[in-house]
Amino acid sequence: MNFCSSCGSKVTLLIPAGDNRHRFVCDECGIIHYQNPNVVTGCIPEWGDKILLCKRAIEPKYGSWTLPAGFMENGESSMLGAAREAMEEANAELRDMKLFSVFSIPHINQVYTMYRGVLHKGMASPGDESLEVRLVAENEVPWDDLSFPVIIETLKLYYEDRKSGNYSTHYGEIIRLDQKTIHVEHY
Amino acid sequence: MNFCSSCGSKVTLLIPAGDNRHRFVCDECGIIHYQNPNVVTGCIPEWGDKILLCKRAIEPKYGSWTLPAGFMENGESSMLGAAREAMEEANAELRDMKLFSVFSIPHINQVYTMYRGVLHKGMASPGDESLEVRLVAENEVPWDDLSFPVIIETLKLYYEDRKSGNYSTHYGEIIRLDQKTIHVEHY
Repeated sequence: MNFCSSCGSKVTLLIPAGDNRHRFVCDECGIIHYQNPNVVTGCIPEWGDKILLCKRAIEPKYGSWTLPAGFMENGESSMLGAAREAMEEANAELRDMKLFSVFSIPHINQVYTMYRGVLHKGMASPGDESLEVRLVAENEVPWDDLSFPVIIETLKLYYEDRKSGNYSTHYGEIIRLDQKTIHVEHY
Repeated sequence: MNFCSSCGSKVTLLIPAGDNRHRFVCDECGIIHYQNPNVVTGCIPEWGDKILLCKRAIEPKYGSWTLPAGFMENGESSMLGAAREAMEEANAELRDMKLFSVFSIPHINQVYTMYRGVLHKGMASPGDESLEVRLVAENEVPWDDLSFPVIIETLKLYYEDRKSGNYSTHYGEIIRLDQKTIHVEHY
């Protein structure tokens, strides 16, 4: 951030009076431009003993497999945002959605809210951001070719719960320890 | 938003190619400035049969009673953000925190994540944003003088769960129907 989005003047990074963090503050009009985490909202579309995965047609991780998910938009709830993403990425209609997990990812300033839900009629087809969509059984999940650590973690937890027949809402933190190491903290 | 925060040129509200929503786009450098919901994270500090409430020393709702909560910051998890808010607003140390609720509030572009947790040693005192803090039993909660609908809803659910002895993670949507009417949708 270099300029004030309100008046167009230069901004300076400083700790405003009464605050304890650096913020971009406009040199002219004094507006404080806060920067905060984004919510990514998505879902596990279920159809019988299978779930729906999408092959990414966009970067990052072009060509990897993922669950439908994307940035929550203003004016929507996180659940309806997850349903919207399933529609946009896989022409998939989700029903009977339940909150499955809430994971913070501090190093990229994101919070993932993931819902599981029934894929209506088992129907899906690739949207603009997907090369391909596929209904997969547990033994068909491409574990080594999934998009992001939070997606791997969500699916691990999902299959654990499914085995036990006892679903709960999971939450925690995905922590990057170094370039190669991710640690998942369960609260 | 009037100006590009990257190059300082004017922005125009338009639907970018491949998108389906209006965004502020820079007339010069073409950067798309997405605007997304914020996470507000907070907690219910428990001490025996009491919980901690704070009297707001800031607008909006100056003087009303609330739970410690505030905007999640970059680089933190929603749980540690909730603990930070308890410390800032009430000098309260929270332990053994559990995710209690996740409510979207679409008309103000917010998602509330609320945790319950043990108030360490039952100790608290007003921080800069609080006029007063108080440990209250259920029959002392000032229901008509609470800050926001999401706080009222959180506390209603909390006391229901406490009565049953069975806590779960609640989620849903706080919907403003008109100036005077709030509807809570439970998923």
